[in-house]
Amino acid sequence: MTDQREAALQYAHNNKEQFLSRFKEILSIPSVSTDPEHAEDICRAADWMAEQLRELGMQKVQIFPTTRHPIVYGEWLDVTGAPTILIYGHYDVQPVDPLNLWKSGPFDPMVRGEDIYARGASDMKGQNLVMLKAVEALVKTGGLPVNIKWLFEGEEEIGSPNLESFISSHKSLLACDFAVNPDSGMIGKEYPTLTYALRGLAYFELRVYGPAHDLHSGIYGGAVHNPANALAELIAGMHDSKGRITLPNFYNKVRKLNKSERDELARLPINDSHFLEVTGAPALYGEDGFSVNERTGSRPTLDVNGMLSGFTGDGSKTVIPAWAMAKISMRLVPDQDPEEVHQQLVRYLEKHATKDIRWEVNAMTGSAASISDRDNIGVQAMEKALETVWGTPPYFRREGGSIPVVKDMQNLLGIESVVSGFGLPDDNVHAPNEKMHLPTWYKGIDAIIHFLVNLKA
Amino acid sequence: MTDQREAALQYAHNNKEQFLSRFKEILSIPSVSTDPEHAEDICRAADWMAEQLRELGMQKVQIFPTTRHPIVYGEWLDVTGAPTILIYGHYDVQPVDPLNLWKSGPFDPMVRGEDIYARGASDMKGQNLVMLKAVEALVKTGGLPVNIKWLFEGEEEIGSPNLESFISSHKSLLACDFAVNPDSGMIGKEYPTLTYALRGLAYFELRVYGPAHDLHSGIYGGAVHNPANALAELIAGMHDSKGRITLPNFYNKVRKLNKSERDELARLPINDSHFLEVTGAPALYGEDGFSVNERTGSRPTLDVNGMLSGFTGDGSKTVIPAWAMAKISMRLVPDQDPEEVHQQLVRYLEKHATKDIRWEVNAMTGSAASISDRDNIGVQAMEKALETVWGTPPYFRREGGSIPVVKDMQNLLGIESVVSGFGLPDDNVHAPNEKMHLPTWYKGIDAIIHFLVNLKA
Repeated sequence: MTDQREAALQYAHNNKEQFLSRFKEILSIPSVSTDPEHAEDICRAADWMAEQLRELGMQKVQIFPTTRHPIVYGEWLDVTGAPTILIYGHYDVQPVDPLNLWKSGPFDPMVRGEDIYARGASDMKGQNLVMLKAVEALVKTGGLPVNIKWLFEGEEEIGSPNLESFISSHKSLLACDFAVNPDSGMIGKEYPTLTYALRGLAYFELRVYGPAHDLHSGIYGGAVHNPANALAELIAGMHDSKGRITLPNFYNKVRKLNKSERDELARLPINDSHFLEVTGAPALYGEDGFSVNERTGSRPTLDVNGMLSGFTGDGSKTVIPAWAMAKISMRLVPDQDPEEVHQQLVRYLEKHATKDIRWEVNAMTGSAASISDRDNIGVQAMEKALETVWGTPPYFRREGGSIPVVKDMQNLLGIESVVSGFGLPDDNVHAPNEKMHLPTWYKGIDAIIHFLVNLKA
Repeated sequence: MTDQREAALQYAHNNKEQFLSRFKEILSIPSVSTDPEHAEDICRAADWMAEQLRELGMQKVQIFPTTRHPIVYGEWLDVTGAPTILIYGHYDVQPVDPLNLWKSGPFDPMVRGEDIYARGASDMKGQNLVMLKAVEALVKTGGLPVNIKWLFEGEEEIGSPNLESFISSHKSLLACDFAVNPDSGMIGKEYPTLTYALRGLAYFELRVYGPAHDLHSGIYGGAVHNPANALAELIAGMHDSKGRITLPNFYNKVRKLNKSERDELARLPINDSHFLEVTGAPALYGEDGFSVNERTGSRPTLDVNGMLSGFTGDGSKTVIPAWAMAKISMRLVPDQDPEEVHQQLVRYLEKHATKDIRWEVNAMTGSAASISDRDNIGVQAMEKALETVWGTPPYFRREGGSIPVVKDMQNLLGIESVVSGFGLPDDNVHAPNEKMHLPTWYKGIDAIIHFLVNLKA
C-alpha cells in the first residue's frame, strides 16, 4: 500500500487548485437550514453533494427526502476483506446574521491570507471536502483501500429532526464497522485532536407575557410587572453566585470526572490565556471549582442565545412591552437527558415565575451527550494518521459542542464514531467571518488519505 | 359673555364634520420625531400647525428652526384687561412599531365605533385640535375673550432636547399669566380630570459587551460570561424582593406623600380592578406598601423599555452573543434629579457589573417631576369648565407620565401650567391602535370654550 499512499498524497498535492475550486463551489450555496427561504438552496446543496459522490464512482447514490431537508447517501462496497466505514457530514449551515459584521459576503467565498472566509467553511463544508478529496485521491490512484458509506444530512444546524428516524429505518443500509465524523476540530493548528466526548444540547424558547398590549411606562409604570424585567429576573435566577445552574435536580445525573480525566484535561495545551485570546472576553467566567477545559468539556452550561423585547430601534420609546422572549440553551454532559432537563426548566419556571406574568416554554432541539471508546480500530488509525502528518501524537479531548448523531449511531447502529476534524478555535463558527485555515485543510486531506490507508494495512 | 358662550358652543356643534376632517388631516402626517426618515413629515406637520394658526387670524405666526425639529409660535394679544395664556402642544408622535399589530394603518385615520384610530390621536394631536377648534369657535362668534400665545414643539417624544433652550432664550416672547397643557388625560370618560403632579423621566441605554465576537455556545459555553445573561443579572438586581429599586441612594430625595394626599388618592374612582382591566395583565405588581394609584403617581419606577441580544429569528442558533442591550427608564418623583439618577445608575453598575464583561450606559432623555399650584386662576377656570360639561367636579390626580415642559415653564418663565386633556386610559398611547374617543373629544372642545370664557368673566 505504500506506493498508493505516496501516489494519493502526490495526487492531492498536484490538485490543490482543483480542490479549492470545488470548495468554493459548495461554499457559494447558501444552505441555511433554519430559514424556509433557503429551502431551494438546501436542495441545490444536496444535489451538489450527490454529484460529487457520482463523480467518485460511488454506487447507489440517492437523495432521500425527509419532511424537511433531504439526506444524501452513496456507497462503495467492493473492497473485500476490508472494514466498512460510514462517513457522516452535514451540508447545511448556520444563519449568517448579523450580516453587517461580515467583511465579505458569507456566500461569496474569499481567500484572505491563509484563510478562506464563508459561512460553512469550517462547519462543516470544509470537513466534507476533506473527506471527498482524500477519497478522490485514492480512487484516482488505484482505488479505495476500504469500503465506504456516505451519509450527508441537511438539518444538523436545526437539531437533525429527521436523522434519528432515518437511521432507525435504514439500519441495514447504514450497517458498518464504525463511523467517521469530522464535524469537530483541533485545539490549535499545531495540535491534531481526537474528540472522545461531546456535550448534548437542550434548546428552548421562553416567552413571558404581561399586559395584553404595550403600555405607556409613565401611566402604568408601577402598576404591572414588566415582562422584560420579569424575564431578566427569571434568567438571572438560573445561575447562583458560584456559576452553578439552579434548575431543580439539574446536576443529579451529571457524571463526575475521575482523577485521570482531570489530569489529562489539565495537560491539554490550551489554557485560560488561550481562551482569553480566542474569545476576546475581558475575563473568563464559569462554575466555581473547575478549570476552563473542564467547564467547556465536561460540565453542563446554560446560555442565553437571543433575547428580544419592546423597542430596540434608535432613540427612546417609553413603553412597557407586552412580552419578552429569550432563546436559552443548555449544554449537557453524560448522563443528563434533554427531556428531563426540559422538565427541570418547567419546574424552575413554575416555582419562580410570579403570578403577575404568564410564560410559555418551547423545547426546540435536544440531544444527549456522548462518550466514545478510544480502543476502536478507527480511532487508532486516525491517531496514527494525525501523528504522521503533524509529527506529534494527537490530543484526546472532551468537546463542548454537540454532535447528537454520534449518540444516535451508538444507540441505533451499535457503532462508535471517530470524531475529529480540521477546524480551528478561531474559525468563527456560528459567527460572522467564519473561515477555514487552508494549510490545515490541505493537511487534513493528507491525514484522511493516511487514515484510510492505515485501515487497510 | 353668556351670548358668546352659547354662540361658540353652537358653532362647535354645527361644525363637527369640519373639525373631524381637520383632525384626520393632521393624523395623516407621520410626524415620528425619533426617526430621521420622517424629518420631512415633521416639517409638514409644523407647516400644518402654522397654517391653522394663520387661519385663526393669529399674529406673528412663525416656525422657529432648532437643531432638530422646529417650534411653531403664534399669538393674539389684542384683548385688553384679560389674562394672557400660553397654550402648549407637541405635533410629533411616537414610533408605530410593532406595525403588524395595528388593525388599520397608523397614519390612515379610521373611525371605528366611537373612536378614531391613528398614531397621535390621543397623544396629542387630538388635544391640539381641541384647543384650536375651541379657539376657532370663539374667533368665529365674536372674538377671543383672552390673550393667547401658542407654542407647538416637534420633539416631545424624544425628550424635547431643544425646548428648554428655546424657552430660556424667548422669555419675553413667551411671557404670560399661566400655561395650558392638554398633554394629559382623564381617569375615565365620565371622570374629568385635572393633573396636579407629573413624574419625571430618566431614560438610558445600557450595553453589555463580552467576547469580541459571537461564539459557538458548545465550544465556549463555560468559558465566558454571556453578555445576555450578564445583562439579565444586572436588570434583575435593580429591584429587590419588595419591588423597590436598588440603585444606591435612589430614594433619598423622594418626597413622601402626606396623609391628606394618600386619602385623596384613595378616593380616586380608579382602583386595582380598573388597572387590571385596562392593562390586561394577569395581576398587578409594584412596590410593597403602596396602592396602585400611589405607585403610578407618586412613587418612582424602573422599567425595561426594550431589550435585544443575539439570535432572535425563528428557529435556533447556538450562539453566545457578543453583546446585549437594554433600554431602561425610570419615572421620577419630586425631588429626584435625573442627572443624580444617572450617577446612581452608574454607581450601581460599577458595583454590580462583574469584571468579565464591559458595559456602557448612555443617558438619553431626562426631566424632573413637577407639582403644580391648585389655586392658580387657570386651574379654577378649568375646574369650573369641566364641571359644567361633565356635570361632576373634576378629580385632581398625580399622573405617572412626564411632561418636562411643565417644570421648565415653572423654572424659566415662573408660571404654573393647567394640566388636563381628554385622552382616556384605554387610548393605547405609545402602543399599537392608538385612538381618541370622539364623544369625549367633542366634549373637550366644549370644555375649552367654557374654560376660555370663564377666564374672561
